Amino acid sequence: MKIVTAEAFKEERCRALETSALTSSVDDTVLNIIQTVRKEGDAALFRYTEQFDGAKLDILELSEKEWERAMFKVDPNVLGALTTAKEQIEQYHRLQKEKSWFEQVRPGVTLGQKVTPIERVGIYVPGGKAVYPSTVLMNVLPAKIAGVKEIYIVTPPDREGNISPSIIAAAKLAGADTIFKVGGAQAIAALAYGTETIPKVDKITGPGNQYVARAKKWVFGDVAIDMIAGPSEICIFADDTTNVSFAAADLLSQAEHDEMANAICVTTSDSFAEELQKEVAEQVKQLERYEIANASIEQFGRIIIANNIEEAHDIINFIAPEHLELMNEDAVSSMQQIQHAGAIFLGPYGPEALGDYVAGPNHTLPTSGTARFASPLGVYDFMKKSSIIHYTEEAFMREADAVATIANAEQLTGHAKSVLIRKEFFQ
Amino acid sequence: MKIVTAEAFKEERCRALETSALTSSVDDTVLNIIQTVRKEGDAALFRYTEQFDGAKLDILELSEKEWERAMFKVDPNVLGALTTAKEQIEQYHRLQKEKSWFEQVRPGVTLGQKVTPIERVGIYVPGGKAVYPSTVLMNVLPAKIAGVKEIYIVTPPDREGNISPSIIAAAKLAGADTIFKVGGAQAIAALAYGTETIPKVDKITGPGNQYVARAKKWVFGDVAIDMIAGPSEICIFADDTTNVSFAAADLLSQAEHDEMANAICVTTSDSFAEELQKEVAEQVKQLERYEIANASIEQFGRIIIANNIEEAHDIINFIAPEHLELMNEDAVSSMQQIQHAGAIFLGPYGPEALGDYVAGPNHTLPTSGTARFASPLGVYDFMKKSSIIHYTEEAFMREADAVATIANAEQLTGHAKSVLIRKEFFQ
Repeated sequence: MKIVTAEAFKEERCRALETSALTSSVDDTVLNIIQTVRKEGDAALFRYTEQFDGAKLDILELSEKEWERAMFKVDPNVLGALTTAKEQIEQYHRLQKEKSWFEQVRPGVTLGQKVTPIERVGIYVPGGKAVYPSTVLMNVLPAKIAGVKEIYIVTPPDREGNISPSIIAAAKLAGADTIFKVGGAQAIAALAYGTETIPKVDKITGPGNQYVARAKKWVFGDVAIDMIAGPSEICIFADDTTNVSFAAADLLSQAEHDEMANAICVTTSDSFAEELQKEVAEQVKQLERYEIANASIEQFGRIIIANNIEEAHDIINFIAPEHLELMNEDAVSSMQQIQHAGAIFLGPYGPEALGDYVAGPNHTLPTSGTARFASPLGVYDFMKKSSIIHYTEEAFMREADAVATIANAEQLTGHAKSVLIRKEFFQ
Repeated sequence: MKIVTAEAFKEERCRALETSALTSSVDDTVLNIIQTVRKEGDAALFRYTEQFDGAKLDILELSEKEWERAMFKVDPNVLGALTTAKEQIEQYHRLQKEKSWFEQVRPGVTLGQKVTPIERVGIYVPGGKAVYPSTVLMNVLPAKIAGVKEIYIVTPPDREGNISPSIIAAAKLAGADTIFKVGGAQAIAALAYGTETIPKVDKITGPGNQYVARAKKWVFGDVAIDMIAGPSEICIFADDTTNVSFAAADLLSQAEHDEMANAICVTTSDSFAEELQKEVAEQVKQLERYEIANASIEQFGRIIIANNIEEAHDIINFIAPEHLELMNEDAVSSMQQIQHAGAIFLGPYGPEALGDYVAGPNHTLPTSGTARFASPLGVYDFMKKSSIIHYTEEAFMREADAVATIANAEQLTGHAKSVLIRKEFFQ
């Protein structure tokens, strides 16, 4: 794990940003898949599922039997932990639910904001080796709490046409309506435009590989999507008071995700930096996912030496990390200085893994510096607002002229007329 | 203006949706412009501005003198009306501002949500014949109230290199920091990636032509964007109690925007439908923008006959209109049945034009049925959230096993280790 200065880190990061690509080598394939699904519907889904997942299906929808059987196949301990997670995720997300409001803002003028759920949501759940029931909970539960009526999961089957029991169990716990056995760009196309079996949805959320990510970008606008996620990141702020083995373990918990994952520690202490470097090198050897974690640490792991606390806060805000652990002495003061981060964990008892599973807040967070403009997935992602406007006759007469004046200045005289025709009538 | 049944309308709309295009004929041009701006910076902006706007500029930024002079060039009546609009827009948007919160959700576990402003925002303001100072207010003011530190406007200059005084005046009233004289895809590229003169921003909002819209779609992800707007729409719900000349004037106020605009009336009354048809044909002749309004009404204007109030609500929710005027007898009951609409105007004293300019709510609204999943532009578009997580030792010890169980089930043993290493230490 390289030790670098804040300045050197900034330069390196800026260079990386400069090369971000607008197009992708998979775009042609993805566009072709989307167009084919729009034209041929289910037939295209069956064909692609055979081609890409090696599964020959007769039916896309998970059967009643498959739903029931899955609950018996999951280790009761895991089911118990998922149930705890579910309850605690609900507990937090319920606090996010916004209410409609209205208010008389000036005499005769009542304005408001009506908050309503999105009606139909599709959730992408990755398949293959990565089986993440927590992803199911983190996507379905906020939608449920928002009041979404129909929640559909799409996920690719294995070669035998099966879905992992823990995915099914999590979907059942969370209250998803249906699981469709389809993945990749074809699943996104089906949700965006509908097929004979799969209903067109209003919004698609959930992580996926580059085909899924590009497909989401292409259908964006015809349907809403959540953020397009990049590699996962952790940033730890540490000083001489920080437990070095905790910090190392937390960095590695991020690094084991994927070779592209970013594990970063910002510290004001040179000696801590050196100890951490050694501890990471030691702990990484003990990991079952050693190869992935080691590759991530080697290529992207950084210990950044900040000259003082202000520079540390500055570099953290520059990174805008997905996960931020404030394990320095005065974590609460630091939190106040942090403007950009997906989730902030305070103190020694809050490893990121708590937030990944059971703490309650969502684990779908803005990556790659997008915390500068994006939020964790939340109930607000599954609701939308309508403005409400009500005027009395008196209030209308008072404000009519201002409307006509601006409308005429914008040469939209029809707008002015719609006001003046009333003014004449009521005068 | 065609009179149709609800069913016929639905079929027509579904057919139109089927042909929505994923790609655009301008994509190659737009991508080329973006790449060139990324490579060449300001030099490319000067070149494109000469090529597309016919203006040979030396400096992109509006000068101090230009700022000052503009205020004298705007009609004082217009300036007064814009000031009223500004104050009332602020009044409404202040009610949208969310606060950070935290709460002890269970013993020893404090969770929260920190709400912070986006730092830098770029706002696109169209130029040419369409001069809309109201657009400046509607984009800048919510960003200001959110607490955005830096707000940059980009807008194409005329052939002499000038910006319309009313745009400048509105920008000054609203408190924008700078205006850059650049438009089109090149302006979006400059905001997304930065040039020598134009700072890279975190989010881009504001309407534009198809080049601007596609450029926004392409840079999306590297920077946040607001919705990509389609043609403007109005939907009026009317019955026998509705004033037919008000309804006609309001439909036409939408139709005059653009030939692609959609003016729709849903009514339960056959006789009202016929009267309205006549009244629209009469009023359209009196409009200064007759040609545009007439083309819009001819091609997209529809009066939909609903068999009863329920069918009327159903078709309105199906349309998910940008603007909805409930001018039927029981507007408040209808409002409760409406799930999807950008802005809802209640009663006879609330023509859409009020909401376009002075009522207070934003006039940037979800178009083309996207009210199914999108909201009006608001203060929330210029803020984002960070989750906050704090555990005591006791709370950590209580929940550690659940974390380890799920982590192991997901084969993320490094996640489990980050929890177990602490458990051992504190035991």
